[in-house]
Amino acid sequence: MEQRKEDSTLKDNVAECLEMLEIRNDVESTRTTEVCGQEAQQLRETCQHLLLCPYPVEEFELPTSLRLQELPLFPQWHLPLKVMASLMVSTFLYTLLRDVVQPLVTQSRNDSYKIPILVMNKVLPWTSITLLATVYLPGVLAAILQLHRGTKYSHFPDWLGRWMSVRKQLGLLSFLLACLHAIYSLSYPMRRSYRYKMLSWAYQQVKQNKEDAWVADDVWRMEIYVSLGILGLGVLAVIAVSSLPSVSEAFNWREFQCIQRNLGYLALLLCTAHALVFGWRKWVELKHYVWYTPPSFILASLLPAVVLSVKMVLCLPCLGRRLERIRRGWERPHSQ
Amino acid sequence: MEQRKEDSTLKDNVAECLEMLEIRNDVESTRTTEVCGQEAQQLRETCQHLLLCPYPVEEFELPTSLRLQELPLFPQWHLPLKVMASLMVSTFLYTLLRDVVQPLVTQSRNDSYKIPILVMNKVLPWTSITLLATVYLPGVLAAILQLHRGTKYSHFPDWLGRWMSVRKQLGLLSFLLACLHAIYSLSYPMRRSYRYKMLSWAYQQVKQNKEDAWVADDVWRMEIYVSLGILGLGVLAVIAVSSLPSVSEAFNWREFQCIQRNLGYLALLLCTAHALVFGWRKWVELKHYVWYTPPSFILASLLPAVVLSVKMVLCLPCLGRRLERIRRGWERPHSQ
Amino acid sequence: MEQRKEDSTLKDNVAECLEMLEIRNDVESTRTTEVCGQEAQQLRETCQHLLLCPYPVEEFELPTSLRLQELPLFPQWHLPLKVMASLMVSTFLYTLLRDVVQPLVTQSRNDSYKIPILVMNKVLPWTSITLLATVYLPGVLAAILQLHRGTKYSHFPDWLGRWMSVRKQLGLLSFLLACLHAIYSLSYPMRRSYRYKMLSWAYQQVKQNKEDAWVADDVWRMEIYVSLGILGLGVLAVIAVSSLPSVSEAFNWREFQCIQRNLGYLALLLCTAHALVFGWRKWVELKHYVWYTPPSFILASLLPAVVLSVKMVLCLPCLGRRLERIRRGWERPHSQ
Repeated sequence: MEQRKEDSTLKDNVAECLEMLEIRNDVESTRTTEVCGQEAQQLRETCQHLLLCPYPVEEFELPTSLRLQELPLFPQWHLPLKVMASLMVSTFLYTLLRDVVQPLVTQSRNDSYKIPILVMNKVLPWTSITLLATVYLPGVLAAILQLHRGTKYSHFPDWLGRWMSVRKQLGLLSFLLACLHAIYSLSYPMRRSYRYKMLSWAYQQVKQNKEDAWVADDVWRMEIYVSLGILGLGVLAVIAVSSLPSVSEAFNWREFQCIQRNLGYLALLLCTAHALVFGWRKWVELKHYVWYTPPSFILASLLPAVVLSVKMVLCLPCLGRRLERIRRGWERPHSQ
Repeated sequence: MEQRKEDSTLKDNVAECLEMLEIRNDVESTRTTEVCGQEAQQLRETCQHLLLCPYPVEEFELPTSLRLQELPLFPQWHLPLKVMASLMVSTFLYTLLRDVVQPLVTQSRNDSYKIPILVMNKVLPWTSITLLATVYLPGVLAAILQLHRGTKYSHFPDWLGRWMSVRKQLGLLSFLLACLHAIYSLSYPMRRSYRYKMLSWAYQQVKQNKEDAWVADDVWRMEIYVSLGILGLGVLAVIAVSSLPSVSEAFNWREFQCIQRNLGYLALLLCTAHALVFGWRKWVELKHYVWYTPPSFILASLLPAVVLSVKMVLCLPCLGRRLERIRRGWERPHSQ
Repeated sequence: MEQRKEDSTLKDNVAECLEMLEIRNDVESTRTTEVCGQEAQQLRETCQHLLLCPYPVEEFELPTSLRLQELPLFPQWHLPLKVMASLMVSTFLYTLLRDVVQPLVTQSRNDSYKIPILVMNKVLPWTSITLLATVYLPGVLAAILQLHRGTKYSHFPDWLGRWMSVRKQLGLLSFLLACLHAIYSLSYPMRRSYRYKMLSWAYQQVKQNKEDAWVADDVWRMEIYVSLGILGLGVLAVIAVSSLPSVSEAFNWREFQCIQRNLGYLALLLCTAHALVFGWRKWVELKHYVWYTPPSFILASLLPAVVLSVKMVLCLPCLGRRLERIRRGWERPHSQ
């Protein structure tokens, strides 16, 4: 009780402090602005000094004592980084096998020049979209669990809880890889390899006396998936910016949820469409199944497609309404 | 009076708290750093926990009560988003009419493949530069109003006040669209449509036995407007970053104004020049007025050009000095 | 003593306030959430109002008094901006001389169209990597100084201290220029000049009846340096984001140092490799030494290479261990 009272008074203090700082910034108060201005200035400078990174960059600037005590090193990021690393390694090996090893073995054609950019740029989008899917998978799983249990008042298994706690990190890593993927893709036509290919294509076209090599199908496919990819990246960028501490702090629950959930699913939808349109009808053409391995876009878009479709099922009236009730606190009779 | 005193003490408290936190971060104090370090650590962790978004992403994580109370949803963004949406729709229809419908009707040529990227990429810059102009238009209007009234001590009409209050949002939307425009433009040469066009051009050049198709005029035009566009985007990026809460908080009035006003007008100038150089001398060539409609770059650069020229007029000594006096509090005798 | 006590109580107050705010955000506490939610809401709104930039953009919104008092204008940025400007001017003149003036004089070939993009895009990376090197040079110098003096308890010369205090600004400028460099490079193939060059190359290839112009060496060179450049930019982006006030505030000493030092040196390494692979074996081909001036990539990668190699030397066991001891407070007997 005593504690409560103190709390509330403290709360008032903070509120008042904030208001007071606010008053300083109030630009309407022309009277006594000079003094206010100065006070605000000094206050702001203190804040500024506090905000602008006050940490030393060089080891020797550290107090000697500190280097002894072991500070934690990004505990929240260990799991996401491990997931990302393992995904990148496996996708890299898979792509290397299909794009470099296979032609070398079967046609003894050396395409190893593809490794630095073309292979990299299959690894990046694949990992990126998979990470993005893992951001929204736990929420879907939790919803299914709640529907099954018929209540919200029972704890989730630890692995699910831990997974949920690193969704932000997974999303940010996915965004970073998506940006790199965009730059890699944009760099294609500036490469020498592309130029030489173009020149030899031109040469062949002239030799074959083919006036126009226009393939409407290819054109449409590319225009659409490039556009979808750019829009997806734009949406991801908005989400990433909104999760900066100082920005997300300025949101209320509803606003934050609107961005992180609605925009998030929109981004996942755009990226999955981007992958599927990129694939176009490759998935029916046998020549893309080198050594009986499916093209990477199929494997890449599987998980996101599953997440999206399950989410859609959960939004169906019948299930949606029940989930709604459960989340408002309703419990199925004799649940558990 | 009593209130005043309390305020001042509270102010001191806050200042002291901040200083104290600062002391913790002070890396010179080698003595007693261990304990300080720990305290600073614990304090920082509390802050951290507070700063890193503490909001739930999944509905069911929300307290049941909260979903009942209706929180506001980005009240500041409604107007800017509506403006942007309407601008995009109208520019889209205009471009669609000129670039897709007209060739279809007159030459029955199907250019619908242009919609996903080429049409989009006329809508984006057009909307972006218009939004950027609307950020600086109200300031100009307000200045004119003050010159007319001869005083600063009279309220602006509500619409102008409301407009001024959403300039930040308008600017950020303009920046987002500008970034998308940049990515869309950079993606041009990687598209199949571009490749096929190149090949057929090469074919024709060989057939016409034309050794070099160099058009100095075209080259210069493109080099300049691409360079101007990139620089404009760079300036916009600096302004956008500087308007992040935690960054802008670290500025004083003069610094913030210097960035938001001087850099802002510089960006507007660069983008308008970008649009005009893009147009080059299209505005005199009749063939660009399909169905008697002016090319979009003309319509796009009208508003920014007006804003910039009015601003320049307002900076002329005669008007500038009077505006200066008014803003320092001077009033025209018997104004009102 | 009295002061100490008050301090500690104040510290407790702040800690409690923060905790209290935290409690409000605690989503597990379903009981009394409504009221908590509201309080948190109101508190958050106050913060929000405080955080979202409360500064006026138009002059007349300023209190009349304020314009009189002279606020500082980015004191921390003066030196870095001056350094950047002088670097850009000198590199611009050097590149202009080599790429535009020399061909004009010797072969009376007018390449002035190169100025807006091609020359700019040699100035940007050169300045960027030099600035990045200057971020890590002072740390290396300080380490050497400490090894020489055999103690950490003696002040650095003022110029070194001042240099160290603007490393953040130098790094951010370097990142900005690196981004511009990336966009400029990506815009190469969309330019008319590139298109016309391609067409004439295709023409020649057909005339020379050369089926394939593939130069494996060139291809490898470009694939590698483009890839290295993109990765370098990605690492720089992570560092830049981590130095946003609200983000860096959420780190502890070790985390911040890990990012700013390890990632920083990684970025410097990647960018230097990017420059050297770009140069490939140009540095042995005499034709690249027009008017006896070395190609810019050599001059650009000199400083970073020096910084990196000295850093590596300092990491050698013999020196590294001694440096370690010194930084833990050990002093060479009768040092000074």
